[in-house]
Amino acid sequence: MAFHLLLTLILALAASHTIATDPTQLQDFCVADNTSNVFVNGVVCKNPQVVTENDFFFPGLNVPRSTVNQQGSTVTAVNVMNLPGLNTPGISLARIDFAPNGGLNPPHTHPRGTEFLVVLEGTLAVGFVTSNNDNKLFAKILYPGDVFVFPQGLIHFQINIGHQSAAALAGLSSQNPG
Amino acid sequence: MAFHLLLTLILALAASHTIATDPTQLQDFCVADNTSNVFVNGVVCKNPQVVTENDFFFPGLNVPRSTVNQQGSTVTAVNVMNLPGLNTPGISLARIDFAPNGGLNPPHTHPRGTEFLVVLEGTLAVGFVTSNNDNKLFAKILYPGDVFVFPQGLIHFQINIGHQSAAALAGLSSQNPG
Amino acid sequence: MAFHLLLTLILALAASHTIATDPTQLQDFCVADNTSNVFVNGVVCKNPQVVTENDFFFPGLNVPRSTVNQQGSTVTAVNVMNLPGLNTPGISLARIDFAPNGGLNPPHTHPRGTEFLVVLEGTLAVGFVTSNNDNKLFAKILYPGDVFVFPQGLIHFQINIGHQSAAALAGLSSQNPG
Amino acid sequence: MAFHLLLTLILALAASHTIATDPTQLQDFCVADNTSNVFVNGVVCKNPQVVTENDFFFPGLNVPRSTVNQQGSTVTAVNVMNLPGLNTPGISLARIDFAPNGGLNPPHTHPRGTEFLVVLEGTLAVGFVTSNNDNKLFAKILYPGDVFVFPQGLIHFQINIGHQSAAALAGLSSQNPG
Amino acid sequence: MAFHLLLTLILALAASHTIATDPTQLQDFCVADNTSNVFVNGVVCKNPQVVTENDFFFPGLNVPRSTVNQQGSTVTAVNVMNLPGLNTPGISLARIDFAPNGGLNPPHTHPRGTEFLVVLEGTLAVGFVTSNNDNKLFAKILYPGDVFVFPQGLIHFQINIGHQSAAALAGLSSQNPG
Amino acid sequence: MAFHLLLTLILALAASHTIATDPTQLQDFCVADNTSNVFVNGVVCKNPQVVTENDFFFPGLNVPRSTVNQQGSTVTAVNVMNLPGLNTPGISLARIDFAPNGGLNPPHTHPRGTEFLVVLEGTLAVGFVTSNNDNKLFAKILYPGDVFVFPQGLIHFQINIGHQSAAALAGLSSQNPG
Repeated sequence: MAFHLLLTLILALAASHTIATDPTQLQDFCVADNTSNVFVNGVVCKNPQVVTENDFFFPGLNVPRSTVNQQGSTVTAVNVMNLPGLNTPGISLARIDFAPNGGLNPPHTHPRGTEFLVVLEGTLAVGFVTSNNDNKLFAKILYPGDVFVFPQGLIHFQINIGHQSAAALAGLSSQNPG
Repeated sequence: MAFHLLLTLILALAASHTIATDPTQLQDFCVADNTSNVFVNGVVCKNPQVVTENDFFFPGLNVPRSTVNQQGSTVTAVNVMNLPGLNTPGISLARIDFAPNGGLNPPHTHPRGTEFLVVLEGTLAVGFVTSNNDNKLFAKILYPGDVFVFPQGLIHFQINIGHQSAAALAGLSSQNPG
Repeated sequence: MAFHLLLTLILALAASHTIATDPTQLQDFCVADNTSNVFVNGVVCKNPQVVTENDFFFPGLNVPRSTVNQQGSTVTAVNVMNLPGLNTPGISLARIDFAPNGGLNPPHTHPRGTEFLVVLEGTLAVGFVTSNNDNKLFAKILYPGDVFVFPQGLIHFQINIGHQSAAALAGLSSQNPG
Repeated sequence: MAFHLLLTLILALAASHTIATDPTQLQDFCVADNTSNVFVNGVVCKNPQVVTENDFFFPGLNVPRSTVNQQGSTVTAVNVMNLPGLNTPGISLARIDFAPNGGLNPPHTHPRGTEFLVVLEGTLAVGFVTSNNDNKLFAKILYPGDVFVFPQGLIHFQINIGHQSAAALAGLSSQNPG
Repeated sequence: MAFHLLLTLILALAASHTIATDPTQLQDFCVADNTSNVFVNGVVCKNPQVVTENDFFFPGLNVPRSTVNQQGSTVTAVNVMNLPGLNTPGISLARIDFAPNGGLNPPHTHPRGTEFLVVLEGTLAVGFVTSNNDNKLFAKILYPGDVFVFPQGLIHFQINIGHQSAAALAGLSSQNPG
Repeated sequence: MAFHLLLTLILALAASHTIATDPTQLQDFCVADNTSNVFVNGVVCKNPQVVTENDFFFPGLNVPRSTVNQQGSTVTAVNVMNLPGLNTPGISLARIDFAPNGGLNPPHTHPRGTEFLVVLEGTLAVGFVTSNNDNKLFAKILYPGDVFVFPQGLIHFQINIGHQSAAALAGLSSQNPG
């Protein structure tokens, strides 16, 4: 058994993302103070007296991102780390851009959350595989306006099978999908 | 105190929607069997052997809905009731269309979930009000690509302040926002 | 669309209260340190070494409160903010006093919790309305010793329909009902 | 080690009660169908179409119960088993009556919930003991209107130290305290 | 009623342990900083930058502990307090050693968790008693390799009925069983 | 992009296992009825009247399993599917046997739970990798009696680096790790 090879494989696998389910809220809001040096499960909150509307705001998700990279896809994650108002509610989102002709969001898991995907433009082949001994593939071709659900912790992927750029919006059931 | 008036007010208020936070999953998926006559917290599941990719699929969210109604807005909810794969993960979504010049999604609450809103097109004035004695308003003008977060259970609204139709996509941290 | 009128309506609505469901405990107790400048989901705890029996104690709920105000009712909330021992367990309580002949606890929601109400004295008409499209009213006349349950997040009210003062005790499934 | 003695002790101890923390709700209500032969975590629900206001109602908690028994106290529990509307919200209640001069609700635990107690009449000595190696006692004399909190899972007791009957109302953070 | 006797009984009872169910994680890990003077539900975390593999490590559970004490048993608990990596995941463990001929882990409860027990060596009589009015005993003789489950909050015990030392490994569904 | 290759990779990856965090209990126990044709999140319960001690029992974890297979390791999972008493508490366990000289439990994730591992015999090299952009490896050589924690959802592995057989016992914070 080549231990070297093993580590390479592990690191390759770990390049995939990770997400999850979250607690309930105990006040109107608990806006993340990402500058605090006190660390808790989640993020400590700003003093509610200094919270403003901008703590609940993130602009620019309409702008396509460059997909000039090895896999031909870019994930723009909006979560508790760049949208502080997403601390404690257990939800976050992302825009995913795909290069034409095979731009791929490669197989990965989100252990901390289920994902819904809405196609904004283009044609995507998507799928997920059940765990364990079954390893059954559920796959579908998606067109603009189509919604698909990837259950928590299951390996899934999206690939642009069209000749144009593609884009999708995702919602995830965790504040920090990983 | 006019009891009649009170009931009218209650029914008016109750026209608003309601949403919430959900449990963790105990298997790969628990696809809703919306035809079952066994009722549980959430929905009982289909036999996993008969689940197909279409249980995770919902089409047509790209199509603008008619906003010819009293308030000039239409909410197209996609939740456990029309997308069975959304049973147990604690997330759902909606498309909201707004008529030009004041199409309004009127003040309402989602007790079972926090909402993120992404503007697809148009210009929206949005806001929420904190609970209790504070009743502080957090409001913002949103343009395409802007994201805003409405914390769980707080009264909020969106209104189209532009001269064109507007549309937004929302994610909600519950399978059955109400 | 009169934006001014809208804001007035929102602020009026927001005068209603808000409540919710809470996490599990990870130690014997986590008594709230309401003076801390570290903010978390809930409240940070006192050093357990300095906790005393008074942290679990709140006196005087037997004393009727004045109901000389516009709506003819007064809510005396006992929650994590004035009874520190209620931090983390997910429960709180309140005494509600009603003026004779129509003292009203007006329509409001508790997004973070279900409420049970026990009538201590007087005759109350109470009710709640289901969410969404149904908006079905469940209402009942209550006498001393009667218990009624108002499900989480649903709009509800209580009104004194007797000629004497009325009083009730409520339990709520959240440490901070809002 | 006398095994016989051991079993006796276990059964004696087990005569104490047990309670706990509960899940979030996934619909407006999930009223218990206590006649169903389908068993789940909690209780399956009635068809929401046949639910009435009486499913949220329980009368008579104002009536003192007889305390003519060995320990001089009677607990009248109101939970999911006799008030079906308490299914899923994670809260329940009880009335406790105490005989004069030492009526005792003996040491017991509620593993599934924290309890608040409000004294309705009489004078009670109450207390709880922390777990483990500490075993620290927190005790207090309570008078009418006083509230005391007994944290989840800790052994606690109440005893009537007055010469009159005493009564208290308790709220518990579980639908089925045990 | 001898109040003195009562307190003695309470303290005796409280010598038993207490455990419970825990929240979900909001990041890869939240390793306990047991030296912090900030107290939360659970434990605040170390800065993830200084976390090392030793924060997930605890040695020596293969070594039998001395059982020379009154009850003839020793519990070696491994939880968030001595294995910081067990903060937030909701699980912990213990090794239990039993003296020959009656070494006893006496009746106790774990309010914050269910326990599984695996016999490493020896012969144990184990059991638990249901709550409330039932008080039904579930008991079994266990041999090496046998697994038994003690549900959350129920009084249970283990006793070595063999002539040799016995040992078992337990897993508990809480980071801080108590 | 070879779609064929992609599917192969997905199926290969999916051969890894999956696990998770669970809800709280609402009664003393909810023993799984694995023969029911009603499907819920988790498993419906047997009628508590027919539950026996054997529903909490699983024998034979002391017996080494054959490791004559491609990867030189065998996982013997004990979860809600073969130990019905593990329904609802959110915990399960496993024995893992490793062939001498490189028996490998290959990189995999448990999205539904954190794992603790106790080495029963032999010498294991173990490790996990954090998610996302960090992909930091935490690794350690373990000897008998050593405990190591693998956080929920992170890719991890164990390999026997000794010349003898190795065995370990694992606890997992979910009833159905996957």
